[in-house]
Amino acid sequence: MLANLKMELKTEENDFIPYQKAVILQGILMEQVREEYAAKLHVTGLHPYSQSITNLNGRNIWNICTANEEAFQEIMLPFQEERFSDFYMEDDKWKVSVVQKQLFKIEKKEFMEQYYFENSDRYIQVSFQTPTAFKSQGEYVCMPTLQLIYQSLMKKYDAASDDETVESGEVLEQLLEYSRIVQYQLRSSSYSVHGKRIPAFMGQMKIKVSGPQAMVNFLNLLFHFGEYTGIGIKTAMGMGAVKLIEGRKG
Amino acid sequence: MLANLKMELKTEENDFIPYQKAVILQGILMEQVREEYAAKLHVTGLHPYSQSITNLNGRNIWNICTANEEAFQEIMLPFQEERFSDFYMEDDKWKVSVVQKQLFKIEKKEFMEQYYFENSDRYIQVSFQTPTAFKSQGEYVCMPTLQLIYQSLMKKYDAASDDETVESGEVLEQLLEYSRIVQYQLRSSSYSVHGKRIPAFMGQMKIKVSGPQAMVNFLNLLFHFGEYTGIGIKTAMGMGAVKLIEGRKG
Repeated sequence: MLANLKMELKTEENDFIPYQKAVILQGILMEQVREEYAAKLHVTGLHPYSQSITNLNGRNIWNICTANEEAFQEIMLPFQEERFSDFYMEDDKWKVSVVQKQLFKIEKKEFMEQYYFENSDRYIQVSFQTPTAFKSQGEYVCMPTLQLIYQSLMKKYDAASDDETVESGEVLEQLLEYSRIVQYQLRSSSYSVHGKRIPAFMGQMKIKVSGPQAMVNFLNLLFHFGEYTGIGIKTAMGMGAVKLIEGRKG
Repeated sequence: MLANLKMELKTEENDFIPYQKAVILQGILMEQVREEYAAKLHVTGLHPYSQSITNLNGRNIWNICTANEEAFQEIMLPFQEERFSDFYMEDDKWKVSVVQKQLFKIEKKEFMEQYYFENSDRYIQVSFQTPTAFKSQGEYVCMPTLQLIYQSLMKKYDAASDDETVESGEVLEQLLEYSRIVQYQLRSSSYSVHGKRIPAFMGQMKIKVSGPQAMVNFLNLLFHFGEYTGIGIKTAMGMGAVKLIEGRKG
């Protein structure tokens, strides 16, 4: 099951909560989950969830996404309980109220069918809504390439799935051969994690996929999955939140 | 000798002349040069000159740059003559007056010395002022990489020089190893040449060079040379005009 919980947050003074605060919110999130699960996440280093802060028409939206059944049970259920209605952010001395909760969930099977058996769009338009970065050969990369994006998406898809593996060098090569960036607007940005500044980027990108329809569907599937997992590094700390912009079917 | 001629252009109705019109201006330029030289440029396929239209505080500036002595003699001299004071742009029915001419020139030796023997800045900030594109493996590339930029700069440097060659795979590898993009703001764009739309980009980029000072100097030299030659494809038709933004010495 894939799930997305949107919580509208309000401080007493109606403060704007910048995306950077997701680093703090990860702490709030971890306080809600059972110790055993927190320890498991820590040991495996896998993150079958992502969370970020975005701002929508002046409202602070805390997005939490889970990408498999276990994460849903362990993370989403505690947040859905009524008692989770406010919390305190110490650094800023903010008393934060959760004024609205909205949960969207979809069975993985149903999610897959949407892309495998339909004619997905050949144009994929991605908006990188919070700073996004990759690590390659030990260094941060603040300028995206399709290779880094696809590798990250496949890795995250596999990490969230018990039953299947999609990551393969061969598939990657094919995806790269048949797709290219046709439009973009990107700028470098950065994200601070515990005092360390990570070079990153934000913006939009439109990709055209020219291969067989099955490949178009697969890439759409990966990117839509990426809306739950994020793209790149530190997606559990608020980086790499992506949203697909739906265009005309093409 | 390196030279840069800036001509302020004015139409009767004070029209804004978009950068795209440099395609037409290349025709005007070729009319001024001797047939033999035009033929030579055509046969060699080399362009030891670049030209573009930019807009500065509402004024239309036609920039013509030449990157060697011959190009200076053949291209710059005719434009400097007093009789070159107006021309007609048929497509737009614009009678264009040259209201100001400004020539800057520097001997190549002096130009080289500026970079070889001084401590050039480790941060190189480049502004891509007109749509810039590369061709790689037969396809247009509308998103820059340092590799494509450096390859283009070295190729253009060599094309304008009789006496020396800087392009080499080894040097390229070293440049790539010791430099990276640390900041940017880029967006896709396009440029029409005779009805064909070329995908391109515009914007700014800041590069940090971490290698030995000699490498820093060499890269600065290449980029400053690039202000005369442009970067990427179709720089004689107005694409790939770059300008370095001087920062603090660092």
